[in-house]
Amino acid sequence: MNRRIAILGSTGSIGTQTLDVVSHDPERYTVEAIAGGYNASLLLEQVMKHRPRVVSVATKELAEELRLNVPAGTKVYFGDEGLHEVAAGTEADYVVTALVGSQGLRPTLAAIESGKNIGLANKETLISAGHIITEAVKRKEVHMLPIDSEHSAIFQCLNGEKREQIQRITLTASGGSFRERTRAELVKVTVEQALRHPNWSMGAKITIDSATMVNKGLEVMEAHWLFGVSYEQIDVVIHPESVIHSYVEFVDNSIIAQLGNPDMRVPIQYALTYPDRYPTPTHRLNLAELGRLNFSYMDFERFPCLRMAFECGKAGGTMPTVFNAANEAAVARFLRGEIAFLQIEEVIERALQHHVTVPHPSLEEILHADAWARAKANSTMFT
Amino acid sequence: MNRRIAILGSTGSIGTQTLDVVSHDPERYTVEAIAGGYNASLLLEQVMKHRPRVVSVATKELAEELRLNVPAGTKVYFGDEGLHEVAAGTEADYVVTALVGSQGLRPTLAAIESGKNIGLANKETLISAGHIITEAVKRKEVHMLPIDSEHSAIFQCLNGEKREQIQRITLTASGGSFRERTRAELVKVTVEQALRHPNWSMGAKITIDSATMVNKGLEVMEAHWLFGVSYEQIDVVIHPESVIHSYVEFVDNSIIAQLGNPDMRVPIQYALTYPDRYPTPTHRLNLAELGRLNFSYMDFERFPCLRMAFECGKAGGTMPTVFNAANEAAVARFLRGEIAFLQIEEVIERALQHHVTVPHPSLEEILHADAWARAKANSTMFT
Repeated sequence: MNRRIAILGSTGSIGTQTLDVVSHDPERYTVEAIAGGYNASLLLEQVMKHRPRVVSVATKELAEELRLNVPAGTKVYFGDEGLHEVAAGTEADYVVTALVGSQGLRPTLAAIESGKNIGLANKETLISAGHIITEAVKRKEVHMLPIDSEHSAIFQCLNGEKREQIQRITLTASGGSFRERTRAELVKVTVEQALRHPNWSMGAKITIDSATMVNKGLEVMEAHWLFGVSYEQIDVVIHPESVIHSYVEFVDNSIIAQLGNPDMRVPIQYALTYPDRYPTPTHRLNLAELGRLNFSYMDFERFPCLRMAFECGKAGGTMPTVFNAANEAAVARFLRGEIAFLQIEEVIERALQHHVTVPHPSLEEILHADAWARAKANSTMFT
Repeated sequence: MNRRIAILGSTGSIGTQTLDVVSHDPERYTVEAIAGGYNASLLLEQVMKHRPRVVSVATKELAEELRLNVPAGTKVYFGDEGLHEVAAGTEADYVVTALVGSQGLRPTLAAIESGKNIGLANKETLISAGHIITEAVKRKEVHMLPIDSEHSAIFQCLNGEKREQIQRITLTASGGSFRERTRAELVKVTVEQALRHPNWSMGAKITIDSATMVNKGLEVMEAHWLFGVSYEQIDVVIHPESVIHSYVEFVDNSIIAQLGNPDMRVPIQYALTYPDRYPTPTHRLNLAELGRLNFSYMDFERFPCLRMAFECGKAGGTMPTVFNAANEAAVARFLRGEIAFLQIEEVIERALQHHVTVPHPSLEEILHADAWARAKANSTMFT
């Protein structure tokens, strides 16, 4: 079985690991198209190695430069049109959506509409437009397979089970870079400290989101849409080792969990080869060697962003979009040194307070709320 | 959906818990037949409550007594004929085989031959006659669902998965009553001490088998037959909390585990309602409350019975039968105060040393090896 894949966001953390999975078993895959951002040299390297027919880059200038170096016959695109071509314009049957943030929404929808199966790493898509995406997935009868470790875990735990017999889904949370610190100790933490995640090597934005617990909040909303469970059925537990990636409790009180060493290449490959499993270039988990797994209750006072995420999820409409977009802007401001770590949550909170939610929003209304939240977050002043 | 069930061994630990499951959801089940042993008063109580059409008891005398008290129309049998009637002579579509030891073999086979699905709690059946039982299950196209917690866990973990993509099965072991003691400290342990299992409330025989690790050895052999894996693919890890009931590692290094509080009513009900799940009268597992799960390597020097079990399993033929029968006799001798705790393993070892294995044994050859091993174990003298 040969899987023809396209990757939106090939030069990021998930994108490069997807290509690593491909490299370890090249007979199984054909890379049809890749889209990167500004890292044109890495993108060129990927083109030379995997020989996609279509490649896309952020800007016109980078595209012109790239065209001089790619093999003859490789089509080079850029910008929104490029993302659309990579998502929907090729023979790929699987599209890995690994763009960062809400820019993933339109290309993901385009991929679904052209009948592609989705390996979903861009969770913002479901968070902002869950009702639109799930309707399209159902109508086009495509598969949508989660790529982050928690949702892949849940998806694996649900193999052969009936969704109506789910009692509860529990997402595990490592606690992020600052799990040992009190809120008082968070006041003056630096960008560098925030970027040191204890278990996972990931991009900067998601590492900050782990420290604020925004990431877990986004995952809660993603789980709601992916698995059709209510917010009351979703729980979060602190598990510092990130070995149990998440678990499902059924109505008989039986729990099925998925475990492994923290390595994204397992969920990435599973999304590409489901329902089959093949060897991965990862290390086996040895529980006897590890010796101990720890768990503790999530503290919603310590991590107010997670509380806000549950509230936004339950409120629905454009509230999750605002939560996500305000956070993206706030994290960017934190990474630029404009605001302090604890001000990320304050920026989000103020945006939520000022937003009048639009129920059942259209794509236009979602993108409008997204832009409004970014502007709001970027203009939030601290005295 | 109404499940018509028969229970072989209704007055034992698994039998009474099976009837407890039935009592909590009586609309879902009809109890067609039950077979108990010598506890006629409990058996009568069960008859009055569940109104089976057929009941069987150990001896003719007990049967005659029982006949005077059961409702009109209830057929009372005894002995081997009685077990056969309960196993194969009713309208039941599920037979729970919860007899202790090798006496379960013939009735289990009779149930399969008459097209019943099996809820297998009597693991000795598969251990002695795995090749005969699995052939019959396949030929009669019945389901065989494991009832002990480890194999039910594995069975649940394999839902929707392909058996050829299993890399390894790991059975967890609590370590039994004496897990904190060295071998030197085991020399003088009493029967009473051995019967105190830290996590599970079970019958006397299986509790001793947990302390010697014979039970885990029998489970290894059972797993070999139930899931079609080689002995090299089966691992045992010490997990004192018995919360992860067992787990499966697949070729991609992803692990699926089944968890819950130690309560046999979950695997019992699952065997009866598979592939569906319904509420059970059990307590939910709360990992945050529990706080910690521990794991350590199995020590085959500390637990030589487990080493012997792997060796017998690999040797095949009548060796597993001898291992099991010698152990049954040895445990009975220990419970009677005839031999010391550590002499259980010595009795088994001597029987194995003197046995000439019969490859691919017939039922007669198995029963012959079984009787030989019991005689050998009962005559083993210590100076």
